[in-house]
Amino acid sequence: MTEPGRRSTIESLSNPLVKRMRLLREKRHRRTEGLFLAEGLRIATEAREAGVLPQWLFLGPEGDTHPLAAALVADTLAAGGEVIDTTGAILSKLSGKDNPQTVVGIYAEPQTTLADLDRDTAPIWLVAERLRDPGNLGTMLRTGDAVGAGGLILLDESTDPYAVEAVRASMGAIFTQKLVVARWDEFLAWLRQGPGQLVATWLGDDTQDYQAVRYTAPTFILTGNESQGMPGEYAAAADVRVKMPMMGKADSLNAAIATAVMAYEVLNQRRRHR
Amino acid sequence: MTEPGRRSTIESLSNPLVKRMRLLREKRHRRTEGLFLAEGLRIATEAREAGVLPQWLFLGPEGDTHPLAAALVADTLAAGGEVIDTTGAILSKLSGKDNPQTVVGIYAEPQTTLADLDRDTAPIWLVAERLRDPGNLGTMLRTGDAVGAGGLILLDESTDPYAVEAVRASMGAIFTQKLVVARWDEFLAWLRQGPGQLVATWLGDDTQDYQAVRYTAPTFILTGNESQGMPGEYAAAADVRVKMPMMGKADSLNAAIATAVMAYEVLNQRRRHR
Repeated sequence: MTEPGRRSTIESLSNPLVKRMRLLREKRHRRTEGLFLAEGLRIATEAREAGVLPQWLFLGPEGDTHPLAAALVADTLAAGGEVIDTTGAILSKLSGKDNPQTVVGIYAEPQTTLADLDRDTAPIWLVAERLRDPGNLGTMLRTGDAVGAGGLILLDESTDPYAVEAVRASMGAIFTQKLVVARWDEFLAWLRQGPGQLVATWLGDDTQDYQAVRYTAPTFILTGNESQGMPGEYAAAADVRVKMPMMGKADSLNAAIATAVMAYEVLNQRRRHR
Repeated sequence: MTEPGRRSTIESLSNPLVKRMRLLREKRHRRTEGLFLAEGLRIATEAREAGVLPQWLFLGPEGDTHPLAAALVADTLAAGGEVIDTTGAILSKLSGKDNPQTVVGIYAEPQTTLADLDRDTAPIWLVAERLRDPGNLGTMLRTGDAVGAGGLILLDESTDPYAVEAVRASMGAIFTQKLVVARWDEFLAWLRQGPGQLVATWLGDDTQDYQAVRYTAPTFILTGNESQGMPGEYAAAADVRVKMPMMGKADSLNAAIATAVMAYEVLNQRRRHR
């Protein structure tokens, strides 16, 4: 898409493009199309600042009056995308919400693989195994951005990172963090081809206090399934198994919380020893 | 309720008690009844271990075959509650889910006030201002339990802590953490009647790195609204304003994540200096 894009108007709820894009709220249509949907000027602006522009940009009744919307329109057209002026009802239909955001962007899924990752570009990488909750997934991406992680590697059957809830919870980090879906055995083989400390947050035996370990870059923080944790063989294959102190009745933290507490410890150690 | 309870059977979806309890998924009915609903044997067992038993315990077709269910039934009856053997369809109706948990408990809302809190019983207290997301709220309770906090104080117009989603995300911590709803001015007046360091996680100016501050017990960790943060006057009234390092594009963390990262720093300092 290097040809300049075009701008059009759609006002009918039964327009075929609207119908087609609306289906992107379902995973199988995202897979077939290789596209996903992100709502809101804030997230679309994060994407633009990361150099990612939508293939289609739907604008609500406020159009491009906001300076950030105007910048988004200009850059989308320059990149060969299509800008579509539309109604509040159509935005509602696309987003599935009664009070839709002012813009909806349709983006290409990056399809990044392990082979595409350069582990040396970041000191921290997040790895999640059978993550089930899209809100947790998006929150992990947001945390990854905050701690300077390179991206998130999703193992086995995790929830779809391009679901609307995950994109929303990422607050734009879906566009700044690399995202790879892989099987455990593929991941482990790739990991061992180069440097990398695999750290499992583990509730079983043979663990160390998470502050007692000296982390070395690149650190891969592995978090297990929300209710079951990770299989024992995954923890056993890690270079170190760690646990946060638990002072109360509960024996575990929310998966996104555990990942964040770990990631800030790794970041803090790097800040101290720099 | 010190009279021994009773055990009955309900098989009709139109039973008046079922209809009434089902309405507890709505906030206004929870307020009127002073009751809330918690799903699942795991959460009900956490409650039982914290000494909290349901007024009504609905059992699905599996009945009390599980040892934890049997213990729950015995203790509920001993405390004067009512145990109701029921169907999967009724549990679905109560929980609003297609695949319901095996038990649903109906509990009295504790109605704790600031005057009821003994700040010296815990080194950490969480405070959230206009928290909107029930998942974040429940996750904060769960984190509070993990770090040994005493409870969560909800300021101004926060989401209802007894919503089903919040109870679920708390993983039982709703029964172990104190929970108070208060206005900011009430809270500040109460806080200043005794010892307590108020720490605001703040995105504005005049902040210190969150690891550069020495925290003193009891530490009150104040987190602002998910999208707007807290009002400037709240931050100004705090004893210290802190910020976590942000290495990426984003300028903020998810509210529950920020709270957890802060709370583990406070806990870690206490672990080091003990």
